[in-house]
Amino acid sequence: MTCGLEPVYRHIDENLGVHLAKIQQFLRQPSISDDGTGIHDCAELLRSYYESLGAQEASIVRTDGHPGVVAWYDAGASKTIVNYCMYDVMPVEGEQWISPPFEANVVNLEGVGRAIVARGAINSKGPYRAWLNALESIIAVNGKLPVNVLFVAEGEEELGSPNFSQVVDSVSDRLKDADAVLNCGASQDLSGNVEMFLGNKGVIDFELRASGKRWGRGPAEYSIHSSNKAIVDSPVWHLVKALSSLTSDDGNRVAVEGFYDDVAPPSEEDLELVSRLEAEFEPAMWAKKYGVSRWMNDMPKRELLENYLFSPTLNITGIGAGYTGPGCKTILPHEALAKFDMRLVRDMKSADMLPKLRKHLDARGFSDVEIRQLSGYEWSRTSHKSEVVQAVLSVYHDYGIKPLIWPTSGGSAPMYLFTREPYMLPLASAGIGHGARAHAPNEYYVVESIGKIAGLAECEKFFVDVLYRFASS
Amino acid sequence: MTCGLEPVYRHIDENLGVHLAKIQQFLRQPSISDDGTGIHDCAELLRSYYESLGAQEASIVRTDGHPGVVAWYDAGASKTIVNYCMYDVMPVEGEQWISPPFEANVVNLEGVGRAIVARGAINSKGPYRAWLNALESIIAVNGKLPVNVLFVAEGEEELGSPNFSQVVDSVSDRLKDADAVLNCGASQDLSGNVEMFLGNKGVIDFELRASGKRWGRGPAEYSIHSSNKAIVDSPVWHLVKALSSLTSDDGNRVAVEGFYDDVAPPSEEDLELVSRLEAEFEPAMWAKKYGVSRWMNDMPKRELLENYLFSPTLNITGIGAGYTGPGCKTILPHEALAKFDMRLVRDMKSADMLPKLRKHLDARGFSDVEIRQLSGYEWSRTSHKSEVVQAVLSVYHDYGIKPLIWPTSGGSAPMYLFTREPYMLPLASAGIGHGARAHAPNEYYVVESIGKIAGLAECEKFFVDVLYRFASS
Repeated sequence: MTCGLEPVYRHIDENLGVHLAKIQQFLRQPSISDDGTGIHDCAELLRSYYESLGAQEASIVRTDGHPGVVAWYDAGASKTIVNYCMYDVMPVEGEQWISPPFEANVVNLEGVGRAIVARGAINSKGPYRAWLNALESIIAVNGKLPVNVLFVAEGEEELGSPNFSQVVDSVSDRLKDADAVLNCGASQDLSGNVEMFLGNKGVIDFELRASGKRWGRGPAEYSIHSSNKAIVDSPVWHLVKALSSLTSDDGNRVAVEGFYDDVAPPSEEDLELVSRLEAEFEPAMWAKKYGVSRWMNDMPKRELLENYLFSPTLNITGIGAGYTGPGCKTILPHEALAKFDMRLVRDMKSADMLPKLRKHLDARGFSDVEIRQLSGYEWSRTSHKSEVVQAVLSVYHDYGIKPLIWPTSGGSAPMYLFTREPYMLPLASAGIGHGARAHAPNEYYVVESIGKIAGLAECEKFFVDVLYRFASS
Repeated sequence: MTCGLEPVYRHIDENLGVHLAKIQQFLRQPSISDDGTGIHDCAELLRSYYESLGAQEASIVRTDGHPGVVAWYDAGASKTIVNYCMYDVMPVEGEQWISPPFEANVVNLEGVGRAIVARGAINSKGPYRAWLNALESIIAVNGKLPVNVLFVAEGEEELGSPNFSQVVDSVSDRLKDADAVLNCGASQDLSGNVEMFLGNKGVIDFELRASGKRWGRGPAEYSIHSSNKAIVDSPVWHLVKALSSLTSDDGNRVAVEGFYDDVAPPSEEDLELVSRLEAEFEPAMWAKKYGVSRWMNDMPKRELLENYLFSPTLNITGIGAGYTGPGCKTILPHEALAKFDMRLVRDMKSADMLPKLRKHLDARGFSDVEIRQLSGYEWSRTSHKSEVVQAVLSVYHDYGIKPLIWPTSGGSAPMYLFTREPYMLPLASAGIGHGARAHAPNEYYVVESIGKIAGLAECEKFFVDVLYRFASS
């Protein structure tokens, strides 16, 4: 749809069979970060993709966990983009699939259309390989890409990217000269609509653990017979009391002193974007999607949006103690565990938060309750006025799509490694096409256009357009 | 050791090899109530034991769960005892044994001596079959037992005896005419000392469950992405708050209104027994045994004993919600579960307790939190002045053993079905010999005398003595 790019589009159309096969090849290579299955082979495969694209450098980056892959494609262009990739996928254990998860067959899905069914189909190997296909077609026709590209890939996204900073650090010199981050995916829903997120919340994943051993009360080493409760303290009750101290009675307002201190109020741009969202956002649809019959505090739409976008949270993701199977075991457990994620919004400093929690617990007789951080991201935000976002939006516009723009997602991602100090890169995600069932059985990525959903060829052409639009912006 | 019983003792000595083989036979027949393995065959085997003893009636009792076994041995005697048996055992899954758990080999255990190693060796099939051996020797020599015996056996003790009342009900007519309950085991510890428990606490096992579905808030059907915590209530926090409301800050005093209303203070007899216990009981030994470095409220010995014996408890046996494995999952769980046992002391009425809990929760905004009872026993108590207890004590005395008498155990058992309305039978447990590691790998039952621990022959003779002592008392 961009004048002068017709030969590239034609190349895509003429090579669609090959392009589909390349996506299938990528998906047929397992890369389960949870247990490491296929991770090294997949990293090598991805490296070979960058190499055959013509990247001058393409290498595996060792980390304390699964390897990263980085590549540098120097087009001699004035602009440089950074392109993020996660090449790992979720496990499939115990799941029933209509087509084996690593066969990547094209299946006719009722109500959806023809799609590749595979683990990683939509999250994220399917669209990512489509993006590489688009780059190959550009190079095949025009000899080179219109921008320099720094590829940065990790194999631990599904684990919370614990070592991604090591991958990023390995290319810090190139990052200093980059202009923007451009991430490519497939973001249409079943109706063809697109959402764009201009940032994400920070997050701290951590555990609180009460144990008789650390407490110096209760059973120290193992669960004991519950008759002892009459004379022995319970680490489980101890943890319950510690947890209960952390929030208001409804579990929604965090009671840790100073928790909200640095929370930035929404900016003017934020409020403007929320007003636009308000016109489109339908709480009832969301409530249905998530199986929620009433929102917290029965909030009206505007408040709901502002809370979702701009409020930090303290959420219990799991609690475990003693025996929870069928029937009963007469035990007094020696320890209890709670797992949390704490979401952070703009201007909150992740380094401050667990010390505040520590202080809160210490002041209330819970100095023995152990805090263990599991992982953490900082928040990330990009202005919708940035060049890369505007370039992406203008291409969507060409395709007749008006994305719903969210100033931030409610979730978290390691994008702060690019968008915050020292690189301060603006970031945009782009892509049409559709897939779903990430982390679930029968994950898919649509390959043949149906209704308003783009097929594979159109998805690839869109990537071509975005790249040239940004190059010329 | 009782004059005139020498021929019976001799019969035991002469048949010890056969008696040992019968114990091994009983142990080699699995009877795992958890998954039902061997349960029906074991019930039939036990029934055949009663039959070959000469019981006029011996039958399997169908229940809603695993079958019971009852038998009636009419000696034409003036006295009738009831004898309880649990024929089921714990599972062995995932355990490492020095000798296969259902081979019942005699093994030389370091620091212990020669013992049968088997699942159920001490809990309770080993000593129970030794008791039947003793009865067989009496009948072989004297033609019949000195008392009538009503045998009542269940195959679900390890499951909390959910259907034992059905077994008891099937023999209610005979129970009305019985004089006492006499249960036989092996109660010596490694030093040869014996403890006797004259009762047990009641118990209610139950669950509290918070779910988005019942609450009408939070996710209703499944865990959702934790970013939603900013606008969606959490059933996990809801349960934490409900739990926290149930006790004092230290988790030790129950805050449910009326919880302590019916608690009987210790009787004069209780206090007298506690004074005797006080002289023998060593808190430091117990603390070491249970891996507890400090007692609740740093109680001194006397208070410790009184609390252990006469205080009701509310103990969390397990909590489960969301994900508690390694790493983190970014979920907002749709439900949370806590499992409890509540121990009841004399005069507390189990039927009152969960309604009181319900009222407490309802009054605090937790009317949606579901209470589900899993099982329950009433408390049971027997006076140490009762004939059957005195008979057992006098035989211990003959053997040079002065049992440590506990007015009640801190644990629970279904004995109230015999000792409370309508039967009101006094109950005693009797037996020398030693075994250990119940519910654990390498469970054993000593067969050759070592130090102050009785061997198999002496154990069986003790049972003979107890039976005749009670008959003539």
